[in-house]
Amino acid sequence: MTALENDPLEINFRTRKWVRPEDLNANGTLFGGSLLKWIDEEATIYAIVQLGNRRVVTKFMSEINFLSSAVQGDVIEMGLQATAFGSSSMTMRAAVRNMITRKPILTVDRIVFVGLDASGVPFPHGFTDITYDRDRIPQEPLA
Amino acid sequence: MTALENDPLEINFRTRKWVRPEDLNANGTLFGGSLLKWIDEEATIYAIVQLGNRRVVTKFMSEINFLSSAVQGDVIEMGLQATAFGSSSMTMRAAVRNMITRKPILTVDRIVFVGLDASGVPFPHGFTDITYDRDRIPQEPLA
Amino acid sequence: MTALENDPLEINFRTRKWVRPEDLNANGTLFGGSLLKWIDEEATIYAIVQLGNRRVVTKFMSEINFLSSAVQGDVIEMGLQATAFGSSSMTMRAAVRNMITRKPILTVDRIVFVGLDASGVPFPHGFTDITYDRDRIPQEPLA
Amino acid sequence: MTALENDPLEINFRTRKWVRPEDLNANGTLFGGSLLKWIDEEATIYAIVQLGNRRVVTKFMSEINFLSSAVQGDVIEMGLQATAFGSSSMTMRAAVRNMITRKPILTVDRIVFVGLDASGVPFPHGFTDITYDRDRIPQEPLA
Amino acid sequence: MTALENDPLEINFRTRKWVRPEDLNANGTLFGGSLLKWIDEEATIYAIVQLGNRRVVTKFMSEINFLSSAVQGDVIEMGLQATAFGSSSMTMRAAVRNMITRKPILTVDRIVFVGLDASGVPFPHGFTDITYDRDRIPQEPLA
Amino acid sequence: MTALENDPLEINFRTRKWVRPEDLNANGTLFGGSLLKWIDEEATIYAIVQLGNRRVVTKFMSEINFLSSAVQGDVIEMGLQATAFGSSSMTMRAAVRNMITRKPILTVDRIVFVGLDASGVPFPHGFTDITYDRDRIPQEPLA
Repeated sequence: MTALENDPLEINFRTRKWVRPEDLNANGTLFGGSLLKWIDEEATIYAIVQLGNRRVVTKFMSEINFLSSAVQGDVIEMGLQATAFGSSSMTMRAAVRNMITRKPILTVDRIVFVGLDASGVPFPHGFTDITYDRDRIPQEPLA
Repeated sequence: MTALENDPLEINFRTRKWVRPEDLNANGTLFGGSLLKWIDEEATIYAIVQLGNRRVVTKFMSEINFLSSAVQGDVIEMGLQATAFGSSSMTMRAAVRNMITRKPILTVDRIVFVGLDASGVPFPHGFTDITYDRDRIPQEPLA
Repeated sequence: MTALENDPLEINFRTRKWVRPEDLNANGTLFGGSLLKWIDEEATIYAIVQLGNRRVVTKFMSEINFLSSAVQGDVIEMGLQATAFGSSSMTMRAAVRNMITRKPILTVDRIVFVGLDASGVPFPHGFTDITYDRDRIPQEPLA
Repeated sequence: MTALENDPLEINFRTRKWVRPEDLNANGTLFGGSLLKWIDEEATIYAIVQLGNRRVVTKFMSEINFLSSAVQGDVIEMGLQATAFGSSSMTMRAAVRNMITRKPILTVDRIVFVGLDASGVPFPHGFTDITYDRDRIPQEPLA
Repeated sequence: MTALENDPLEINFRTRKWVRPEDLNANGTLFGGSLLKWIDEEATIYAIVQLGNRRVVTKFMSEINFLSSAVQGDVIEMGLQATAFGSSSMTMRAAVRNMITRKPILTVDRIVFVGLDASGVPFPHGFTDITYDRDRIPQEPLA
Repeated sequence: MTALENDPLEINFRTRKWVRPEDLNANGTLFGGSLLKWIDEEATIYAIVQLGNRRVVTKFMSEINFLSSAVQGDVIEMGLQATAFGSSSMTMRAAVRNMITRKPILTVDRIVFVGLDASGVPFPHGFTDITYDRDRIPQEPLA
């Protein structure tokens, strides 16, 4: 893999989520499972645009420390940054913070996605750099 | 209300959604109801941060033209911009576009939110300008 | 479009919804986004039966005033009435009220749906009148 | 219990549901579990209005024959009719049919609900007849 | 049908559910509709493995007594046991109990599932006994 | 922490999930985010019973390799085993496999949960061993 710059300040916090009753655990704080699902969904979107491929799957997630939580009515925001590209994969890191208090909720150093072709086989993407222009448009809609 | 600038180029597209089977109508395109729910959720988050108040409710939505749609696996992104502040309300406009094709999906000229106090009465916020720093932190968690 | 009668008394309130925790905003009242989704779903069902076509999409929604709200455990009911038919479209108006208190929650003057053929092109329906017998059965199941 | 009239023709079909991908089983037909949830939700709403009490719980459901099913994009409608009132309970029967084909999907002869007071104890309601005017308004909102 | 042994002690409680806000009725106890959906989902899984067929549909459910309930944060567990096999069907009984208090929540004496072939016609399975080894693997993935 | 035995064969696979349309990614295989949410929910239930405390929160998750996936209509099952107890925490490992094909889907070596008291502070539990009898019943319902 080709290592890219990895400056935490460069993470672009985009998607925001509003913590609702269905996202709480019995302690009244944000349920870890909801949070993990949100991160994987956001990471999937990021991988689709970086790889220009709708067929992307999660292959690896490095360890996760849950640093703080959030309560009902809080708003959280998620940020992602590509850190390396393999032949058919890409690696990104993720950060989630409380948008109200700005306290970090968690970070994940490495989430790896692989792009597949129509038959489900890893597909070499040929990219080595991050796109900031979001112009890697998947060419064909899914069947 | 105090009118703010209203330049379409200034909309900051943030939250992204991935169109999944549960968001489709029977024609296989994005269900309008899911889209409306996403917009209201994103607008709620924006109002919370602009008014520094977790207790915000939707009061008005101007007419909506559904210009184009999206299909399963598409990624859409939503943008909002505050356009005016009333004594206890704020007005924003919204745009949704297909992140893959960049085609506009819809725009809403005016969505009005009102901030309430703990007893549900409109609460004068004292703001007349947009915050870009997101530092209007609601002071108290919700009971 | 051919204008039909537009008497508010004629709206037939049918589908009822029970306000649950997942439908609340942080003020403890009915979240606008849930309400909008319910209306669009109900309108879709109405359009399917009026146009005898499962492939219907939302094209336009006129402005919405949120007059009052509802709280957890409340029951709301939604009513729809066709008001005009275009060549491939139909227009309806919608009303939502609190079934417990009968207070109006919102009205939408015009919601426009278009019927499509299998390739997604607007399909002339040939109808000019409302069906009360619900006998416009779509002939073929969706693929 | 006081038996009421039990004429199938008198069932008033109200709430309509649109069968979506999330409601299908692996055979591509309506999942029985979704259907059962919808019936219980509709029955809860009916019991709230008949007993004038938001605190109602399901106590009994008689046997269910699944006569036919529905496919994606179908619209189904549910009907309920009170058949008897006990001191703190009420009994209703339920019917579900395909709104497109009008074929019966299932019937349930007896669904029993009990109204409770604020401490969760069965609460005598004093009613012996069906209300068609929906004017048994629960007096107090839930805490 | 061939009757199998029907010893209540033999039920194997497997799937566990955590009662969350979205599963509550207005009395603050477990909503009957959520419970029915969970049971049908668990029964579907059991039928798939017992019949070695992904295409199974619910045909019948015998009467249900709701004996006790559960509150938010409770954990419930569901158990199933095959009791008879017909030519293309199987019958099972179900029990649900509160995992914390071990109090029974409900039992259903007979839930009947039918296995179908690819065209939706009942498919003779040839089984007369329960499999404990879960080795009746459906041969083909669903189209 | 006190290390417990860590024999993979001892994992007790309990909760089963049926892969539905809403759980798929655009490649038609099980969405990683749904899987992560299911694991955290199952782990929460296990922690509640092992610690005899409804107030448990996820603190740490070690790295995850997604070894294989599942398709619509597949059934997966999840297994957990406590591996160590800290003063207010417990560690478990998790395994998920395809119940139809028995292929492993993923394993997580360490998931750490912490039990809290009513004010949200870590609460010493005093346990050093796994309970197989599930008799650590939380004494009080949640407010």
